[in-house]
Amino acid sequence: MKTRAAVAFAAKTPLEIVEVDLEGPKAGEVLVEIKATGVCHTDAYTLDGLDSEGIFPSILGHEGAGVVVEVGPGVTSVKPGDHVIPLYTPECRQCKSCLSRKTNLCTAIRGTQGKGLMPDGTSRFSYKGQPIYHYMGCSTFANHTVLPEIAVAKIRDDAPFDKACYIGCGVTTGVGAVVNTAGVEPGSNVIVFGLGGIGLNVIQGAKMVGANMIIGVDINPDREDWGRKFGMTHFVNPNEVSGDLVAHLVALTDGGADYTFDCTGNTAVMRTALEACHRGWGESIIIGVAEAGKEIATRPFQLVTGRVWKGTAFGGARGRTDVPKIVDWYMDGKIQIDPMITHVMPLEDINKAFDLMHAGESIRSVVVF
Amino acid sequence: MKTRAAVAFAAKTPLEIVEVDLEGPKAGEVLVEIKATGVCHTDAYTLDGLDSEGIFPSILGHEGAGVVVEVGPGVTSVKPGDHVIPLYTPECRQCKSCLSRKTNLCTAIRGTQGKGLMPDGTSRFSYKGQPIYHYMGCSTFANHTVLPEIAVAKIRDDAPFDKACYIGCGVTTGVGAVVNTAGVEPGSNVIVFGLGGIGLNVIQGAKMVGANMIIGVDINPDREDWGRKFGMTHFVNPNEVSGDLVAHLVALTDGGADYTFDCTGNTAVMRTALEACHRGWGESIIIGVAEAGKEIATRPFQLVTGRVWKGTAFGGARGRTDVPKIVDWYMDGKIQIDPMITHVMPLEDINKAFDLMHAGESIRSVVVF
Repeated sequence: MKTRAAVAFAAKTPLEIVEVDLEGPKAGEVLVEIKATGVCHTDAYTLDGLDSEGIFPSILGHEGAGVVVEVGPGVTSVKPGDHVIPLYTPECRQCKSCLSRKTNLCTAIRGTQGKGLMPDGTSRFSYKGQPIYHYMGCSTFANHTVLPEIAVAKIRDDAPFDKACYIGCGVTTGVGAVVNTAGVEPGSNVIVFGLGGIGLNVIQGAKMVGANMIIGVDINPDREDWGRKFGMTHFVNPNEVSGDLVAHLVALTDGGADYTFDCTGNTAVMRTALEACHRGWGESIIIGVAEAGKEIATRPFQLVTGRVWKGTAFGGARGRTDVPKIVDWYMDGKIQIDPMITHVMPLEDINKAFDLMHAGESIRSVVVF
Repeated sequence: MKTRAAVAFAAKTPLEIVEVDLEGPKAGEVLVEIKATGVCHTDAYTLDGLDSEGIFPSILGHEGAGVVVEVGPGVTSVKPGDHVIPLYTPECRQCKSCLSRKTNLCTAIRGTQGKGLMPDGTSRFSYKGQPIYHYMGCSTFANHTVLPEIAVAKIRDDAPFDKACYIGCGVTTGVGAVVNTAGVEPGSNVIVFGLGGIGLNVIQGAKMVGANMIIGVDINPDREDWGRKFGMTHFVNPNEVSGDLVAHLVALTDGGADYTFDCTGNTAVMRTALEACHRGWGESIIIGVAEAGKEIATRPFQLVTGRVWKGTAFGGARGRTDVPKIVDWYMDGKIQIDPMITHVMPLEDINKAFDLMHAGESIRSVVVF
C-alpha cells in the first residue's frame, strides 16, 4: 500500500512529506493507521545528527496513537479496529528481562530495532524502490506503520488520539518515573530539575501519588506558572539563589528531598539532584539523556550515607501492561494532558514542530493526520 | 575509676598502654567492661592520620564486646551483667532517621560523637588531668568504657566475646550489606570486589541467603582459598583477565550480576562494580571507604538502563535491633567467624595488630583483655 509520511532523508535536513510504499504485516505484526503523533526531543536529537547511531533515510516519530487496520498470521492480542499506542519499549513477556519482574527493558527485538528493521531483519517501508528504515520500532511520522504485536498497547476506544499519543512517550516517562521507578510515597518531598514536558509530567505524577513538597527547579522563570499548573508547590530559580544550590534545597526540605528527578540531561545538574537528596534514604532518578561522552560524578560518601542513584527509561513502564492504565488515569482526570499540548498541526507542518521545540516555545506539538 | 587503655596520643605514633581515669556513667549512660575488641582498618585510617577529622589524644577501637558494669540514671534497656556490643551507629528509635524506617543512620548523637565527646559535650576519659577523647562513640581499646544507652546492643550471654566483638563492625557491615542494603534474593548472581574481611563477610552473607554464583574478584591470588572457605563459587584475578574486566564479568554472569559489592575503597573498582551489573536491574553497593577527595564516575546511560548505585554504612543494620540477630546467626552456625580471627593478642601487643593489617597478613586481629 501507499501511505503519506514525513521522511528524514538525511540528518540536519528538513523532513520531506512524500507517499511511501508500505508492505503489509507479516507473521506477528500489525498494521496501524496513525491518527496522531507527538514530536519529541528524541526525534530532534536524531534529526539533528547528535545520535551517532541514527540511521537514514528513515521515518522518525515514536509517540503515536492509532487504530489497527490489519494483523498478520499468529497475532492474537489485537484485532482490526482496536485503538493502540505504539511502544518503542516492547513487552514480550517471555524474555529474561520481562520475566525478571524487575525491569521494563524487554530485549526481545532489541537487536533489529536498533538497526531500523523489523524483527525479521527487513524494513516494511520503501520509497522509489529503496528501503526506508524504521525508527525506534515505531515510525509514527507516517499515516500507516507496521509494528510487532509485542510493540502495541491496546487502549480504550474513547481516549482522544491527539491527547493519548503523548502517553506513548512523555507522559509515561514522567509519571512512570514517579510511580514505577521511584515509588514515591504520599507525604514525600520531591525536587524536579528541568520543567519541560518531562518535568511537568513528573510534577503531576508526584501530585497524583500525594507528595508533600513538589519543588520545581529551572533557570527559565516562565516555567514557574507551568509548574504550578500541574501541582508544583515551590519554585527555585538557581540564578536567584545566592550561595550553594544544594545547601539551599537541603534547607528548604529540612534535610534533603526524599526523591529528586533530573529532567535536564545535564550531568552537572544530575550531581546536584543526587546531592540534594536526604541523607539515609533520598533517591535520585536520572530521566534526561546526556550528551554523548558526558559522565556523572560524585563522592562515594554521598552513597555510603544512604543516597541512591538510579535512572529510568520509558518511566519503568511495561508497555502493554502499564500504558493502558495511564490512559485510564488521564480519562479519569487523575492526570492532565490537554494543557500540555501547546500546538496541533497537520503533517505538512511537521518541521514547524521542530522549530518550536528548538526555540523552547512548545511543551508538546502534536501532528494529526 | 582507673582502667587500662591503649591511648593514641597523636597520629602516626604507636598506641601507648597506660592507666587512664574514667568517670562513671551519667544519666542515660552505661559503663561497660570490654572483654575483647577487633582492630579494624578504620582505626588504622585514623591512627595513620588519613582522617582529616581525627581527634587526639583519644582511645581508638570500635569493634568490641563486653559486660555492663553499671548504668546511669534513667537507663532501662540494659542492667549490670548484660552482655553487650558497643555501637558506633546508635539506634535511638526516636529521631527522624530512626522513624523513617528507611535508614539505620540514627542522628541522635551525631554532633557530639563526631567531636569525640559524650552527648553532654564532655569526655569521660582523662590522663594526668587532661581529657582523652572518645572515638566513634565507642573507644573499645580500653578495658572499661562509657557509652550512651542507645549505643549498646544487648546480646545473648553464651556468645564468646572474642568472636562476637567482630560483629560490632566487620561482620555486620558485610553480612548486613547483603541482607539489609541489597536484599539479595535466593538464586541471585553476586560479585564481590576485594576479599579482605568485609568481602569475606559479604560472601558468607550471600551464601546464607541462597545466592547462586558468588564471584570473588581480587588481585591477590592467595585470597582465592579464603573466598572459597566462605562460599565463593568463582574467583577472578583481574591481572589474569585478558581484555576488559567488565566484559569478562558480564559474560561470566550471562549479562551481568544481580548485585555487586565494592569492598576495596578504590573508586575505579567502584565503577567496574557498577558496570558489571545486569542491565535493567543490577544493583551495586559501595562498602569501601574511598580516599578523601576521590570521586566515582560513570556514564548516566548505565543508570538510565536500569543499574542502581547505592552505598551502605554498618551494613544498613539498626544496631540494637539487628546486631543481636546476627549474633544468633553466628551461634546457630548460619555464618562463621572463628576462621576469620587470624590473630589473638593481649592489649600490650595491640600495635602488632596494626602491623599485621598493614602487611596484609591478617583477616582480623582481636585483642582480649
